[in-house]
Amino acid sequence: MENKLQNKIANKQKSKPNSMLFKSPPHIIGRYVIVGTKETEGPFKEYFKHSIIEKEFIKLTYEKAECKILEEAIFNAIHNSNLTLSDIDVLLSGDLLNQITSSSFAARKFDTSFVGLYGACSTMAESLAIGACLIDGGYFKRVACSTSSHFATAERQYRAPLELGTPRTPSSQWTVTATACSVLSNSGNGPIITSATFGKVTDFGISDANNMGAAMAPAALTTLVAHFLNTHTKPEDYDLIMTGDLGKLGSDIFVDLMEQEGYKLGQNYTDGGHIMFSINQKTNQGGSGCGCGASLLNSYVLDKIENGTYKKVLFIATGALLNSLTSQQGETIPCIAHSLVIEKGD
Amino acid sequence: MENKLQNKIANKQKSKPNSMLFKSPPHIIGRYVIVGTKETEGPFKEYFKHSIIEKEFIKLTYEKAECKILEEAIFNAIHNSNLTLSDIDVLLSGDLLNQITSSSFAARKFDTSFVGLYGACSTMAESLAIGACLIDGGYFKRVACSTSSHFATAERQYRAPLELGTPRTPSSQWTVTATACSVLSNSGNGPIITSATFGKVTDFGISDANNMGAAMAPAALTTLVAHFLNTHTKPEDYDLIMTGDLGKLGSDIFVDLMEQEGYKLGQNYTDGGHIMFSINQKTNQGGSGCGCGASLLNSYVLDKIENGTYKKVLFIATGALLNSLTSQQGETIPCIAHSLVIEKGD
Repeated sequence: MENKLQNKIANKQKSKPNSMLFKSPPHIIGRYVIVGTKETEGPFKEYFKHSIIEKEFIKLTYEKAECKILEEAIFNAIHNSNLTLSDIDVLLSGDLLNQITSSSFAARKFDTSFVGLYGACSTMAESLAIGACLIDGGYFKRVACSTSSHFATAERQYRAPLELGTPRTPSSQWTVTATACSVLSNSGNGPIITSATFGKVTDFGISDANNMGAAMAPAALTTLVAHFLNTHTKPEDYDLIMTGDLGKLGSDIFVDLMEQEGYKLGQNYTDGGHIMFSINQKTNQGGSGCGCGASLLNSYVLDKIENGTYKKVLFIATGALLNSLTSQQGETIPCIAHSLVIEKGD
Repeated sequence: MENKLQNKIANKQKSKPNSMLFKSPPHIIGRYVIVGTKETEGPFKEYFKHSIIEKEFIKLTYEKAECKILEEAIFNAIHNSNLTLSDIDVLLSGDLLNQITSSSFAARKFDTSFVGLYGACSTMAESLAIGACLIDGGYFKRVACSTSSHFATAERQYRAPLELGTPRTPSSQWTVTATACSVLSNSGNGPIITSATFGKVTDFGISDANNMGAAMAPAALTTLVAHFLNTHTKPEDYDLIMTGDLGKLGSDIFVDLMEQEGYKLGQNYTDGGHIMFSINQKTNQGGSGCGCGASLLNSYVLDKIENGTYKKVLFIATGALLNSLTSQQGETIPCIAHSLVIEKGD
């Protein structure tokens, strides 16, 4: 059946972006999340079991701290998979920092092949999608997929150092401090990744680096509509559809855009950025950052899949592909979204 | 035979990094290179058929110029493959700029799925290796793989703006201004990619951002030794072994390191950075940048494979994974190298 659908996708009239169906869907056999203090005070505190121990980081720069928690998340995800470091064939990772230094520097600690990715906040979906291809294609047996973001490193790189006390605009989102790693394997009994869609770069002319939800919503739309068409599914076929991280404003725009395309998103739709923090945490439009969707996926969502609450989840991670120089040079913000379907395995 | 060797690799005692063998090796059916003026004055002028037309860029920033020549290289590579834009299933690209903006911004012009990569100067090999997996694994039929670098954008981002006139140290390399794109297909009669090795991050404690050849040499060593062991080949099995871009000093160190490991590299070995410029072009240790190895591979090397001079080429692209902040924070330079074997197709 899978193969028949795969041919159908290959032969049909082009409706880009294209989707991939996995013949031998890889299993998520282990995972680990580390979040910051603020994140443990929000609605998901019971799902975030590991947070930064601040005294360990007192002598580090923010960048070194981000790298260290990423290392720890990767190490512990491998450990939780009942594997040793030498069992991992490839590590796929990316983050928000210039030249993805959190990932590259963390990779020094792991004696394995490394593939560096950049998809801004869409990185968790990008790494899981490529990881799934590398396993399903028969090239490797076990792949670790990770990402990270950190409020202080992201603010000083993209906008202004926190020490300046720059006021935050109403449309802004709060970069989540979180690292997450999932370990994929060609065998096991964890949740499985059954399909994925690499999104296309979409630019709707928004140039405000403090309104990224609005910039990213059209990219999420493009990917999700393509995904539904390519896989012949509709919103009701999923127990949960989670975008990340459009925030409150961005996800409202996204729901409206989807409705214009004829897809009514119901109670099964949510956005990682929107739900990450409670209203009294004063994050304006909610969370953002690679770690936002990644930490929710690797805790709350996969917990619910493993315990049977959710059977089929569609995760669409969105990324704004700007840098501080392009903003200064008056450029608009190109965005992307990659999607994944995760189902309860056998 | 291919399959037997694949099983042999899968079952053998771990010797990381791992290699991939492609069962249905993807064909390079089209390619295009655009270089800067200085590059057309070097030893490869007859192979570089397209260079920047300076008057077209007079009103652009350096970053916008880099993005524009990357767009043109991708567009023309697709055109040279006798394809239209809608035939391309995925575009894989990365570059040296923060948040790979040359690639992401160029991708806006192509109505196709996009996967952003970061491997510093190793990006051409990384994109071709992932592209080969996506095709050989049966997920897509045609993938465009591209990268770019630009002397002025790289200097102002990693070291100092050119306008300051900062003297260059003797160990420095000259970032090549070049963009290149290869189009891979599941059918055709171009050169084929038969195997690839994703390298691991290697840090030998060098912290001088002006001596990247020395920092990258150990990463090239790790990948090349693994590649020889995994594929049961030796240096003499290749008509050309080209590293990129260690430069003169880096490639001397690399040859010495290889000899210590028992591999004597002969006349068939060269380095893209070392050979890119002539001595009177005053680049100190030679060329560097994603575009250096990528432009040589997509012109000189593939020309020689297509005309039958070379039957089997091993390309090892090296990358230094630093950023300007990590240098300021006293960090050493983690490096990586990915390798590819390209052979004359049927």
